[in-house]
Amino acid sequence: MDVITLTKQLVAIPSARSTHGTLGEAEADVAAYIESRCKTLLSPTWSVERQGVIGARENLLVHDGSPVRILLIGHMDVVEIGGAWTTNPLGEEKEGKLYGRGGADMKSGVAAILTSLRFAEEYKIPGVAALFYCDEEYEFLGMKAFVDRYKDQMRPKIVLCPEPTQLNILTGVRGCIELHLEIEGVAGHAARPHMGVNAFRALMEGVAGLDAFCAGITDPILGSPTLNITGVHCGLKEKDGSLVSPANVIPNYCKAIVEVRSVPGITKDDIVRKFEKHIKASGARIGSITAPLNLGTYATEKKDVSALEKAQQDILGEIRYDNPAERGYSDIQMLAECWSVPAALIGARGGNTHGPDEYVDMQSIQSLEKIFFSFLKNTV
Amino acid sequence: MDVITLTKQLVAIPSARSTHGTLGEAEADVAAYIESRCKTLLSPTWSVERQGVIGARENLLVHDGSPVRILLIGHMDVVEIGGAWTTNPLGEEKEGKLYGRGGADMKSGVAAILTSLRFAEEYKIPGVAALFYCDEEYEFLGMKAFVDRYKDQMRPKIVLCPEPTQLNILTGVRGCIELHLEIEGVAGHAARPHMGVNAFRALMEGVAGLDAFCAGITDPILGSPTLNITGVHCGLKEKDGSLVSPANVIPNYCKAIVEVRSVPGITKDDIVRKFEKHIKASGARIGSITAPLNLGTYATEKKDVSALEKAQQDILGEIRYDNPAERGYSDIQMLAECWSVPAALIGARGGNTHGPDEYVDMQSIQSLEKIFFSFLKNTV
Repeated sequence: MDVITLTKQLVAIPSARSTHGTLGEAEADVAAYIESRCKTLLSPTWSVERQGVIGARENLLVHDGSPVRILLIGHMDVVEIGGAWTTNPLGEEKEGKLYGRGGADMKSGVAAILTSLRFAEEYKIPGVAALFYCDEEYEFLGMKAFVDRYKDQMRPKIVLCPEPTQLNILTGVRGCIELHLEIEGVAGHAARPHMGVNAFRALMEGVAGLDAFCAGITDPILGSPTLNITGVHCGLKEKDGSLVSPANVIPNYCKAIVEVRSVPGITKDDIVRKFEKHIKASGARIGSITAPLNLGTYATEKKDVSALEKAQQDILGEIRYDNPAERGYSDIQMLAECWSVPAALIGARGGNTHGPDEYVDMQSIQSLEKIFFSFLKNTV
Repeated sequence: MDVITLTKQLVAIPSARSTHGTLGEAEADVAAYIESRCKTLLSPTWSVERQGVIGARENLLVHDGSPVRILLIGHMDVVEIGGAWTTNPLGEEKEGKLYGRGGADMKSGVAAILTSLRFAEEYKIPGVAALFYCDEEYEFLGMKAFVDRYKDQMRPKIVLCPEPTQLNILTGVRGCIELHLEIEGVAGHAARPHMGVNAFRALMEGVAGLDAFCAGITDPILGSPTLNITGVHCGLKEKDGSLVSPANVIPNYCKAIVEVRSVPGITKDDIVRKFEKHIKASGARIGSITAPLNLGTYATEKKDVSALEKAQQDILGEIRYDNPAERGYSDIQMLAECWSVPAALIGARGGNTHGPDEYVDMQSIQSLEKIFFSFLKNTV
């Protein structure tokens, strides 16, 4: 069965979080399909290990029994269909594109992993394994569970993930640290700003200080960290907790969400410390600070993915990288970190990812498959 | 009747906005009292003109029929009693202080004006008039109505107002310009800040630009303008108008209240233009901008209040000024502006103005009265 057909069949199987009820076994049908394909495509020397993650949601680890050298990973879940589709979210072919939820992100990638396993068997390339995992789109529960259980049981030489990258190579992700903070100033009459502490100005100072700190850090691959500030609510907090905004009163309260896209070398603690320092210097104090999200970063040097570069050159006639400084988080980072090994993403061309009319360019799925095959041969 | 007794009787008459119902005739009882005192203290050559302002609320203009040279002004309303008083808000004497709402702000001043009128009659000082007016504490309706009707009917040489100043002279007020603005940015993924326009950062740019503009303007009396920023709400505005705050989305909306304490030489239009310029330079646009409050500023030079300085020197043995850069707005500004004449505030010593346990130092009321008498004699 070819990679295009596999992709179409995978897209036809819903696997959003709500598929079997909100907290249901989103990926169950895709997992069953993958397992049955493995039985068809691979010889009985291969194992499919199921790992329970949460409720009925599972990861699948497929391997040939030899030490894992190359780990290919692909998530089975997709985001909710949502929005106003003009095409069939479960798959519709049009002008060389396959429309459907997950076509790009990342069932075409999952299909290419399956044919790559078959290729490895056919060409007797040992140590190629695949992780098909759950809950990448929301809470990374699948990857977290995998790391917990498998981190000491293998240490591949490289991890590859075919998330959609327009066939470019991506060798790093920035981290994502989300801070929720409350700043407490001192109320006072607006005519005497020096007699109070404006909590909004304290936030401005904190942001400016953190901007300067971030600008001073540059990773050769990932660039500098950037800040997104949102969810700002500032005013006069009354004793009953309500927030009001008399124009002539210095506001004593400001809350904000600050999301930092981090690079190697700075941690959540660095950011919190810098922020606190600047807030305090402005005369205010931190009422509370929490980090509901603290995802790490990684960057692999190009020299460590030369085999992938060569495969890309073989198939596309050129070496092309995506700019990781402009990409969102990907949980391949957890593997790069836990094993300290090179890790890269390369996936098909597509568009409208996470939106209506998501699509994948079908020819690019074949190119992706060929790049994977070439890479496996180069990495014997 | 002496100035202390007059103050006590005035404090005993409620005149907050709620006195006769929320929109009622707050100052009616005080006005009646003042009119009856004028009839007792002054000869029949004096007139008491009543001016309707809104509903049953009135101003009283008391004059001797000759051209007005010196206008003494005092508001009859007080702020609501509110809060947790440990003394009687309608008057309680303790250790040389008279506690009660309005004792300092500004019924002691009203009392000193009344005895000054009597003094003017007694010493045959012509052209001394008094305006007792309504609604100073909230919307300045009394002063606005007075200016509308009387601005072309008189042009005194000086206007004095005994708002509480610890017996210091105050020769200017900063203006107060309240802007309500909405900033529209461009939403986008937090990992690509350059692809969107963060509405919060646009506000930061606007504030920083306006700060720099204000720091470049210094009035010799009033100093530099200052900014208070409050009422900030920033996030992602959805199509249905709701404001949400996903950490990974660049916020496209920020609203804020910016209150500028202005000095002579800058107007609301200057401020709006500067703000707009910096907001636009940041890539965002102004969704709306309104100025619900636009109160002017004035500053009188010391040489123009030399008679008042001399009176203060006579009574207190020193010349003392309040720093007008640290004071709130006072609607004496409207008179200084409409007539382009010197205007000054000087009032009794007191504390807890607008709060519980407001008080006035009783001896200082007598000092104030003596300063007024001396000033009137010096200004014949």
